[in-house]
Amino acid sequence: MIRIGIAGYGNLGRGVALAASKNPDMKVTAFFTRRAPETLKTVLPEVPVYKLEDAAAHKDEVDIMIICGGSATDLPTMTPMLAKDFNVIDSFDTHAKIPEHFANVDAAAKANGHIGMISVGWDPGLFSVARAYGLSVLSDGTPYTFWGRGVSQGHSDAIRRIPGVVDARQYTVPVPAALEAVRSGSNPTLTTREKHTRECYVVAEEGADLAAIETAIKTMPNYFDEYDTTVNFISLEELHEKHMGIPHAGHVIVSGKTGAEQENNHVVEFSLTLDSNPEFTACVLCAYARAAYRMVSSGVTGCKTVFDVAPGMLSTLTPEELRAHYL
Amino acid sequence: MIRIGIAGYGNLGRGVALAASKNPDMKVTAFFTRRAPETLKTVLPEVPVYKLEDAAAHKDEVDIMIICGGSATDLPTMTPMLAKDFNVIDSFDTHAKIPEHFANVDAAAKANGHIGMISVGWDPGLFSVARAYGLSVLSDGTPYTFWGRGVSQGHSDAIRRIPGVVDARQYTVPVPAALEAVRSGSNPTLTTREKHTRECYVVAEEGADLAAIETAIKTMPNYFDEYDTTVNFISLEELHEKHMGIPHAGHVIVSGKTGAEQENNHVVEFSLTLDSNPEFTACVLCAYARAAYRMVSSGVTGCKTVFDVAPGMLSTLTPEELRAHYL
Repeated sequence: MIRIGIAGYGNLGRGVALAASKNPDMKVTAFFTRRAPETLKTVLPEVPVYKLEDAAAHKDEVDIMIICGGSATDLPTMTPMLAKDFNVIDSFDTHAKIPEHFANVDAAAKANGHIGMISVGWDPGLFSVARAYGLSVLSDGTPYTFWGRGVSQGHSDAIRRIPGVVDARQYTVPVPAALEAVRSGSNPTLTTREKHTRECYVVAEEGADLAAIETAIKTMPNYFDEYDTTVNFISLEELHEKHMGIPHAGHVIVSGKTGAEQENNHVVEFSLTLDSNPEFTACVLCAYARAAYRMVSSGVTGCKTVFDVAPGMLSTLTPEELRAHYL
Repeated sequence: MIRIGIAGYGNLGRGVALAASKNPDMKVTAFFTRRAPETLKTVLPEVPVYKLEDAAAHKDEVDIMIICGGSATDLPTMTPMLAKDFNVIDSFDTHAKIPEHFANVDAAAKANGHIGMISVGWDPGLFSVARAYGLSVLSDGTPYTFWGRGVSQGHSDAIRRIPGVVDARQYTVPVPAALEAVRSGSNPTLTTREKHTRECYVVAEEGADLAAIETAIKTMPNYFDEYDTTVNFISLEELHEKHMGIPHAGHVIVSGKTGAEQENNHVVEFSLTLDSNPEFTACVLCAYARAAYRMVSSGVTGCKTVFDVAPGMLSTLTPEELRAHYL
């Protein structure tokens, strides 16, 4: 049994606890939290909860530590710190800062004979893998990534910070015509506005200036100003009734040409439709935790990503079973 | 530069020659054929053509030999034989015989310090990889594979063997309702008939008994009797005008559930739409030839499959470039 530690217990940590419990070769042996441990009620009440700051004292109880913190402030410090005492895996998703995070985790993991796997989830993660396969096979291919329809936590938070807003959900939605153009293999050049629209469901305070809120959303730099955005004001009841899920979806599409005259077109597409973004991400983390365990057991140390993991390493099946049933 | 040898020059061998020429790190250095070498005109007229039986004499001219033979009779003997003198890669696709082929290639490759990569293409190949990722992540997921719309060479050949038939093309077509049911995450149980239909375009001899041909097709055991099949009689001109391409397509879909009450559904889909089945397969072979070259250079020998190859090994990009741009 691979002994899994879980550092951080929000939606993702809860998802990892559920996913690891379903994997026949894994057992969650400890939770680590910055809250008072006795106040944390998990889905696995028999598993002990420790203070995160005392984690090192429990390093012999955990084979792989799955770090379930946020990319903005938690993971940049947590992952390198925990990599000193544990084999670690995280879902760091700030694309622009991946090289820096990689270097920090690599140094800490290598110095202590550990493996540190970063940026594991679906984007980055399975989508990265889909981009790598597509572009390696179609050597002059063009990659496209579409997200949605799904909830963007960052955009929802940005709306909530507007004065007069009680609560909000923002859905990112791919433009059907753009998806169709890409799938046709026509290799279109698409602007930000042409690829996605943004749908907002907003609960306003009583008496709030709705027109002002709508303008504040639609003109918000980076978040909304480059998109066609629709704003729907709804009641708190309706928000709770219809918008409490955390679904997401997306597509990675690579198209390219072959033939003596480049006359043949090929389209490779990888798509996800997820009822629960954090629970699916948790499943990906568990599969890569298995790979991390196998890799470090065979002497691999340092920082690794999904690009370094052969698909067979992720499976509970033996190589013989995989070849016989799924090749 | 990785020096590529190509053994066999049909549609696939021609595709490999074109694909390898487009890869910046590859160079085709030799063709090997069972025909009289001087009669073989390739798309790379500057590259020498040798007799297949003399291949061993040219082993120092080739880093990776891509074997472009048929799975029924060529590859079971060619791949183990060539693995004695070369690092080899093939697209062996007789699913039921993969374990036996693996054992034969493994013995020959290991005994001679070579790598032998087998069953590389899209199914087996990229579809196998999609099944492995989907089932590793969704640990109780259900995998579905759909093929088409595309030409099945085996079924076309089977029709051609019926008396009175001049030529024929058979398209395998997924049933839209079945695809939709699988994508909905309902995990349907589907019969062979419910998953695919078969569309036949047949050129008959003048005066042939068309009704008898149609019956012979529709009742043919294994090939057609378990499917809803439509037979269209067309002229040779129409066949040449509309049905000379070798397109194919397909979908691997894995769906599974998560959550404390299994209340959340997830669907992972990998799809291909290919104008030229052999040219795309050739592109996949080239990407894995690169991986094979890197793996054997780092000391890996024996038989390997797509399950053993990390996606980063397939790319022309450095690990740093991959992480910075595609993670």
